[in-house]
Amino acid sequence: MNNHFYVVIMAGGIGSRFWPYSRNNRPKQFLDVLGVGASLLQLTFRRFRNICPIENIYIVTSEAYENAVLEQIPEIFKDQVLLEPTRRNTAPCIAYASYKIRQKDPDAIMVVTPADHAIIKESEFIEVLKHGLQYAQDREILITLGIHPDRPETGYGYIQFHFDSENAIKKVKTFTEKPELELAKKFIESGDFVWNAGIFIWNVRTIIKAFEKHLPELAELFENITGDLNSEKEKKAIQKVYSVIKIISIDYGIMEKADNVFVILTDVGWSDLGSWASLHDIKEKDKNNNVIEANALAYESGNSIVIGPKGKLIVIEGLDGYLVADCDDVLLICKKDNEARIRAYVKDVRNKKGDKYI
Amino acid sequence: MNNHFYVVIMAGGIGSRFWPYSRNNRPKQFLDVLGVGASLLQLTFRRFRNICPIENIYIVTSEAYENAVLEQIPEIFKDQVLLEPTRRNTAPCIAYASYKIRQKDPDAIMVVTPADHAIIKESEFIEVLKHGLQYAQDREILITLGIHPDRPETGYGYIQFHFDSENAIKKVKTFTEKPELELAKKFIESGDFVWNAGIFIWNVRTIIKAFEKHLPELAELFENITGDLNSEKEKKAIQKVYSVIKIISIDYGIMEKADNVFVILTDVGWSDLGSWASLHDIKEKDKNNNVIEANALAYESGNSIVIGPKGKLIVIEGLDGYLVADCDDVLLICKKDNEARIRAYVKDVRNKKGDKYI
Repeated sequence: MNNHFYVVIMAGGIGSRFWPYSRNNRPKQFLDVLGVGASLLQLTFRRFRNICPIENIYIVTSEAYENAVLEQIPEIFKDQVLLEPTRRNTAPCIAYASYKIRQKDPDAIMVVTPADHAIIKESEFIEVLKHGLQYAQDREILITLGIHPDRPETGYGYIQFHFDSENAIKKVKTFTEKPELELAKKFIESGDFVWNAGIFIWNVRTIIKAFEKHLPELAELFENITGDLNSEKEKKAIQKVYSVIKIISIDYGIMEKADNVFVILTDVGWSDLGSWASLHDIKEKDKNNNVIEANALAYESGNSIVIGPKGKLIVIEGLDGYLVADCDDVLLICKKDNEARIRAYVKDVRNKKGDKYI
Repeated sequence: MNNHFYVVIMAGGIGSRFWPYSRNNRPKQFLDVLGVGASLLQLTFRRFRNICPIENIYIVTSEAYENAVLEQIPEIFKDQVLLEPTRRNTAPCIAYASYKIRQKDPDAIMVVTPADHAIIKESEFIEVLKHGLQYAQDREILITLGIHPDRPETGYGYIQFHFDSENAIKKVKTFTEKPELELAKKFIESGDFVWNAGIFIWNVRTIIKAFEKHLPELAELFENITGDLNSEKEKKAIQKVYSVIKIISIDYGIMEKADNVFVILTDVGWSDLGSWASLHDIKEKDKNNNVIEANALAYESGNSIVIGPKGKLIVIEGLDGYLVADCDDVLLICKKDNEARIRAYVKDVRNKKGDKYI
């Protein structure tokens, strides 16, 4: 195992799209969404344990979730949990980890990954990442993982690549976030588009160069506190940086602008688990295409998801394409495929009933 | 107040039609179905307190519900609660009460009433009953309460009466249980049909004569233990009787056969609360005709009932004519108007999941 390999797991999301299964105090990454006896964060951690030494794994999260992370991942030490004082999207999160790792090891090569995605073909995934890490070690490139698409999904970002080599690592041409269905269909037909998994590989010098070039203000903030990182001054320094830092994603801030971006093409059974519909896709179904994660009886119902607590009996009749989520003090019954609607309901609940149900 | 007036409240039903709101250990009569801060039994008791001395009110129930009755009606003594060892429908229940009351007071005049119905116009109801009691005192007649129907309800029994006097108490021609819709419509049009409320008035000599004539075996069983009633031997004697007694309703066993049956016509806003649909009829609705008895937000939903526990938030979308009943360890989501279906689900739950959810 290469001691310069590092993994950064981003685990700060609130995952409001699985509301009410996920809640502010219990976001998606901490839940056993796949019903396998381990949370998504735990699955992610276990997956990456095979890639680098355990002490080279960092988890970035919000202060509010520090205890949840340490409880779920007892294998790591407290200083491997990077706490963001406020949520500022992925660019600051990745910058924090990158500057901290560089301070420790200027020769580091890093994988950056979300904590809340699903990977079906684990061993292939590991092989791809190891290949990427080796490839990125001495090259000044930013690599992103591209998943071979099997449907014109409109909820994902797409990466268009150049057909110019036999190598599975190709130069990126364009990024497109969440296309309309017609466009997504064209992407699929064209054959040179893959889904953007939001998983990145690079050596630390290269990503910091990219920050300096494309997000110079942000780079300067972290450059100024580099001496404080990995010391007892880190917390205070980070609080200062985050009090002025701008909200920006790594995709928008760097990946879509840089000209040294490459994509590793792969097919590892990936899902961002970003919606109830994606959960339905990935889970085992009964003969009427229902996903039943409850003690339930379903009559004349199909294409639905039923989630309920242990011990509770749920009886449904006449629901097609519905979500029934009975989670603690919230019961949501709605059409499962309209994510925008569900987000609107969450917003309405917040306005009318207060934060306690969110 | 006439000391010979008695009231018998039948409170032994299990009310499985409101499942899962009603459960075996918590039948309908013990629930605050109307949301007024009192159970149906309590409402019934309070209503009849105005008709006779409190010590003349008897409540017949199952042994399993003795404590529930005494807790809900602290005004009565234990010997006013008649305990049936097994459920044998209304004829044995009424016979038990009748023979017991006769043993105490041969001049008694009785009202017999279910514990789990709703009466909207209370004071009119009381007046009607007082009139009926006075009328039945010296007449050898069986009186039943007939409710002026306002719709062709197929879930009720109908009483056809003779148009032969100006008196509000008319001789009964026929009984018809739960007619088909077409027939129910004809009944309404004809003008000489009323709903059978299952509330009866008679003097105790007359009902016992009717038992002797139409159900002689049953009459003999109770005649034989008359000496034991109102003594410490009562419990044992009743257990013996109930071990051999046949299941039969007062309607089928006596009312439909006797030729001295009269009906008091009235319009007191009555509902037998026998179905979720009848509950929907009687309750306050929101602008989309939903009955919401929960902390709920309803989107694009109408003609539905939502029942949930305090503190729980229920969000529904796209449900028309549904019942959502979140009650303890059972959640039922189904179309609200098909009672036969709901009964089938209850049966299926019993078969597949066991009695504990019933």
